Amino acid sequence: SVNPDLASERQTPSFSVEKLTFRLDGGAEHTRIRRAVVEAIERDPEFSRENQYFQSQNERYEAAVRKAVHLQKQMQEMGWTESGPEFKYIYRALSGDVAFLLHRIFMRSISVLGSDKQIAKWIPLATQFQLIGSYAQTELGHGTYLQGLETTAVFDITTQEFILNTPKISAMKWWPGDMGRSATHTVVFAQLYVHGKCYGVHPFIVQIRSLKDHSLCPGITAGDIGPKMNFEHVDNGYLMLQNVRVPRENMLNKFCEVQPDGTYVRQGSQKINYFTMTTVRISLIADEAIIPLKKACTIAIRYSVVRRQSKLKPGEQEVKILDYQTQQEKLLPPLAAAYAFHFLNDYLQELFDKGYREIQRKNFDTLPELHAFSSGFKAVVTQYCTSAVEICLRACGGHGYSLLSGLPSLYTKILASCIYEGENTILLLQTARFLIKCFMAASAGQPVPPSVTYLAAVKPGKCPAKNKSDFLSPDIYTEAYQHMAVRLTSSTAAKLQDLIQSGVKKHDAWNQCTVQLVQAAKAHCHYITVKNFAETVEKLETKAGIQKIMKHLCDLFALHGIFSNTGVFLHDGYISGAQMDMVTASYLDLLAVIRKDAVPLVDAFDFTDKSLNSALGSYDGQVYQRLYEWAQKSPTNKQMSPAYERYLKPLLHNTLSKL
Amino acid sequence: SVNPDLASERQTPSFSVEKLTFRLDGGAEHTRIRRAVVEAIERDPEFSRENQYFQSQNERYEAAVRKAVHLQKQMQEMGWTESGPEFKYIYRALSGDVAFLLHRIFMRSISVLGSDKQIAKWIPLATQFQLIGSYAQTELGHGTYLQGLETTAVFDITTQEFILNTPKISAMKWWPGDMGRSATHTVVFAQLYVHGKCYGVHPFIVQIRSLKDHSLCPGITAGDIGPKMNFEHVDNGYLMLQNVRVPRENMLNKFCEVQPDGTYVRQGSQKINYFTMTTVRISLIADEAIIPLKKACTIAIRYSVVRRQSKLKPGEQEVKILDYQTQQEKLLPPLAAAYAFHFLNDYLQELFDKGYREIQRKNFDTLPELHAFSSGFKAVVTQYCTSAVEICLRACGGHGYSLLSGLPSLYTKILASCIYEGENTILLLQTARFLIKCFMAASAGQPVPPSVTYLAAVKPGKCPAKNKSDFLSPDIYTEAYQHMAVRLTSSTAAKLQDLIQSGVKKHDAWNQCTVQLVQAAKAHCHYITVKNFAETVEKLETKAGIQKIMKHLCDLFALHGIFSNTGVFLHDGYISGAQMDMVTASYLDLLAVIRKDAVPLVDAFDFTDKSLNSALGSYDGQVYQRLYEWAQKSPTNKQMSPAYERYLKPLLHNTLSKL
Repeated sequence: SVNPDLASERQTPSFSVEKLTFRLDGGAEHTRIRRAVVEAIERDPEFSRENQYFQSQNERYEAAVRKAVHLQKQMQEMGWTESGPEFKYIYRALSGDVAFLLHRIFMRSISVLGSDKQIAKWIPLATQFQLIGSYAQTELGHGTYLQGLETTAVFDITTQEFILNTPKISAMKWWPGDMGRSATHTVVFAQLYVHGKCYGVHPFIVQIRSLKDHSLCPGITAGDIGPKMNFEHVDNGYLMLQNVRVPRENMLNKFCEVQPDGTYVRQGSQKINYFTMTTVRISLIADEAIIPLKKACTIAIRYSVVRRQSKLKPGEQEVKILDYQTQQEKLLPPLAAAYAFHFLNDYLQELFDKGYREIQRKNFDTLPELHAFSSGFKAVVTQYCTSAVEICLRACGGHGYSLLSGLPSLYTKILASCIYEGENTILLLQTARFLIKCFMAASAGQPVPPSVTYLAAVKPGKCPAKNKSDFLSPDIYTEAYQHMAVRLTSSTAAKLQDLIQSGVKKHDAWNQCTVQLVQAAKAHCHYITVKNFAETVEKLETKAGIQKIMKHLCDLFALHGIFSNTGVFLHDGYISGAQMDMVTASYLDLLAVIRKDAVPLVDAFDFTDKSLNSALGSYDGQVYQRLYEWAQKSPTNKQMSPAYERYLKPLLHNTLSKL
Repeated sequence: SVNPDLASERQTPSFSVEKLTFRLDGGAEHTRIRRAVVEAIERDPEFSRENQYFQSQNERYEAAVRKAVHLQKQMQEMGWTESGPEFKYIYRALSGDVAFLLHRIFMRSISVLGSDKQIAKWIPLATQFQLIGSYAQTELGHGTYLQGLETTAVFDITTQEFILNTPKISAMKWWPGDMGRSATHTVVFAQLYVHGKCYGVHPFIVQIRSLKDHSLCPGITAGDIGPKMNFEHVDNGYLMLQNVRVPRENMLNKFCEVQPDGTYVRQGSQKINYFTMTTVRISLIADEAIIPLKKACTIAIRYSVVRRQSKLKPGEQEVKILDYQTQQEKLLPPLAAAYAFHFLNDYLQELFDKGYREIQRKNFDTLPELHAFSSGFKAVVTQYCTSAVEICLRACGGHGYSLLSGLPSLYTKILASCIYEGENTILLLQTARFLIKCFMAASAGQPVPPSVTYLAAVKPGKCPAKNKSDFLSPDIYTEAYQHMAVRLTSSTAAKLQDLIQSGVKKHDAWNQCTVQLVQAAKAHCHYITVKNFAETVEKLETKAGIQKIMKHLCDLFALHGIFSNTGVFLHDGYISGAQMDMVTASYLDLLAVIRKDAVPLVDAFDFTDKSLNSALGSYDGQVYQRLYEWAQKSPTNKQMSPAYERYLKPLLHNTLSKL
């Protein structure tokens, strides 16, 4: 039975929830396939996440391995293939709680960097899991800056082998998933030396564990790096190499080869590699950032219509906490952002599919733009979603702090997305570098990629809005965002120029502008996100109330962005103080409008209770029962603690006589 | 041996680190006592936190109980008493990782709410730990709004007992610490009914576990609420009561009593109770928010001068990451805030000591102001420190994400401080209510408490700064903050008035202003913090370079606040766009200045390695060795995982023949 406080929220949605779900999935057929995958996985007890919040790191790891092995069987049984339409829903249905994800990266790096011969040898073995691969790039002392890696691979011409070494502790490989306990092989990135000359970083296939008994191979020291904020199910590992020899054929040699006589040959274009990194960043936006945000919104909003707290009017019932403006202000902008980023992701996917087709035709022209896009949006979306999940967690008060709410693990996991695959600040600075370059080119009248042509169109002007309803016009707010992005880019470019002209060295000048460069990159991404949302809304079907509610969300997303960053819009007077009061008024009005549809809007994300795995967010809203039932399962309730016999009993032993 | 990259940072501090430590402690004598307590506790293996990051909830609980029991013995041995100067350093030296903290609240509530007879009966038993107490207020469905509690206590005149019941699941007590597994007694807050009439919430002493064998008493259902984001060492519990009878004498009756014939008598003033809540909020600011922030700064800043990443200039060594402006922008404002809040806390302590003396003389005049202070600063400081700890965590990249860095547990623990002892948004609205009331009074020419007299002095004007160095004048920036706080309060008061005059009901009008009321309350607290920092700096001794560096930090704290909230200063043109560029320039200049003293400034906090418990933040900066050593201790490295035999071996069994 559904909690009546939740049921009432679903009685009169302003739009068709089911039709919105179809739209989000990209059509009813996709919804059908997704639901079939989710159902198949959720009815299988082997994939259960039921006791997850009570498990140790050891137990989580073992369950993840069990699931990975079981998944292979199930995929065959269900007829699901890696290229089939079901595949993208599997990982999602498992909530990523499965081992051997790095095994896939191992395979991908061989496919991309290996010769046909290497592919023919290794890929079939890996596909059938007759070895377990990992990917060893990051070192204890070296992350983003690949040229700084310290692991060495020296070519020994006499034996035709590479000798791999970890010259010092900071060179130890650190973090690779699946490596701490599972992997038998890994791709090690090391500085290649031939005849004493360094040729830079190259990839080598190295066996690290015996295929007989899984013991470490000679010269290998490896293990698990220990507890982390999340990812308990992954055996992130360390690896030290002492004179480990691999045959010449184990250097992945599609692009570079060391010939038997030690001649180093470079062949082909490595540009495609950058594209691989780029696609990884784009693909994580949906799975690792937007979906967790949608889950967090679903949990927090459902809870907020079931939880009642304090009275607004004396004598009345306590109020649903979502009726408080402050609670709406916490939860509805993240909800709007979930939709904004959903549509942004559609846009990015399309852009990258197009880019991929070009690149297959050896046209690399779009690569810098795609790289700037993937870097900036990976940073902006993961950053926003992480903050928003934290807001959802806090908005649920004490119950949000319980692991049983599901929110802490969503938060601790999404937080990592700000760091991996390129730390966000570094990524934003890469986007900024692209922006500054394009701004300079545009100012000089040179052609620039389509996404940044707007930088050339600097209009001083003022915002033409005259009353608060003007700010519900996408033209008005999109232009405000554009103006702001141009201003931040152009003023930072000017500062950079000034510093250099005043004699500051180029790299120092760059460093002195980085705080502002980061702001400019964020502004650019924010502008594109708002623009894309507004354009998407315009193209939506007007039937079933969908366009109308999406328009409200788009307005809310845009105005919340202005309301939370008033300074950048007020700075040059583009928006005046009086206009900003209109923005605030419109923004606060919208909160009350969207609040009415808040539950239908999260229902449209169509998460099952099992995928939310939350005592607060289930479809039926029976929050208190579920918290109590789940708490009783905690191992802390399974036994009398030994602490009683050891410590409490001696304390309490002579109280009886006194009471 | 100290890592040379860290050692070099300590070579030429601009001030005396030791003298600054003395100043922070409130004098050299306090430093001596603190160090003695820390040393005594850290050399005792019973108090070790060495394996903490590897322990389960069960193990953490048991260790906390063991430590609590051991602590009683040690205090006697060392001659430390609860009223001695050492006491406040003990909890800090244990990093709060000890059981029976709610036992203290149990005792405090009896001392404050109980009659002399009740105190005489219960306090000696509790002092000697012949019973273990807890404090059962919050319910599954009820938090901040005490009047909404649903637990009932019905007076049975025939037996002279109260009959306690949990009428429905949302009325179950939920969260009380020490209750899930340890407590034998608790103070239950319940709605009192006599002859069918409800007299509101009152406290009752209830025994919940047998003193013989620790089994649950008849009618009691209790247990542990399960896993949380942190506080694994605390057995936060649930409690259900079914016709549990306690004698009439068990209602704490200093202020209210039910006489044998059922007559309800209220006596004395309960105002002192509010003061108790107020002092709890103030005391947690230092222990639960400022100290964790200082620890996080110490860890992140030491790590940032040891970690090298990328090159600024080609051909040179990789750069210490603290040399990047973006890293300075992340870490130095939190460092400045740690000092700002340290001095703010000194100020609040003094204010409350004074208030306490007044209250003891039955003068309750300052209570509303103290309540507004404690609410607002609890919210603002915990919120700021939580965000800042998260920034420190992220600023350490992947290593910050490892539990071994110490940062995740600092973060997950401090996060709770935003929720407990009053959820922050609710607290800010209480401060706002006080501000609006005082603003109205001041506008009407009535007297207001000293901290808010500034609200009456609304000066329209403009900021007089003419160049960037003007913004290093405390008068300039303090006035800007004051102007901003007045404007936000007065404009929100005006909106509230307008709404009510236009016919909106008072409570709806209030709700429609709450987003802006929260902003006003924050602005007020921010202003007081800046003002107090500036005034403190002026009074510091000019010797040993301390005043000079503190002045820099004060400037940084103030300018960072403007830089991060430009909109509220630009809104009415008090600060112009051109002036804001000066603020930005001054702010960025300061980052480079303070960066030079960053390590000495965290050294002055004087944390031992054991109290930081961080592989990244130790005094010697040997980060990589420590990470490796600690990782090896992980239970995931203690055994071959059963996953190998069960799942991996069957997969890998026939690979050998193929390689």
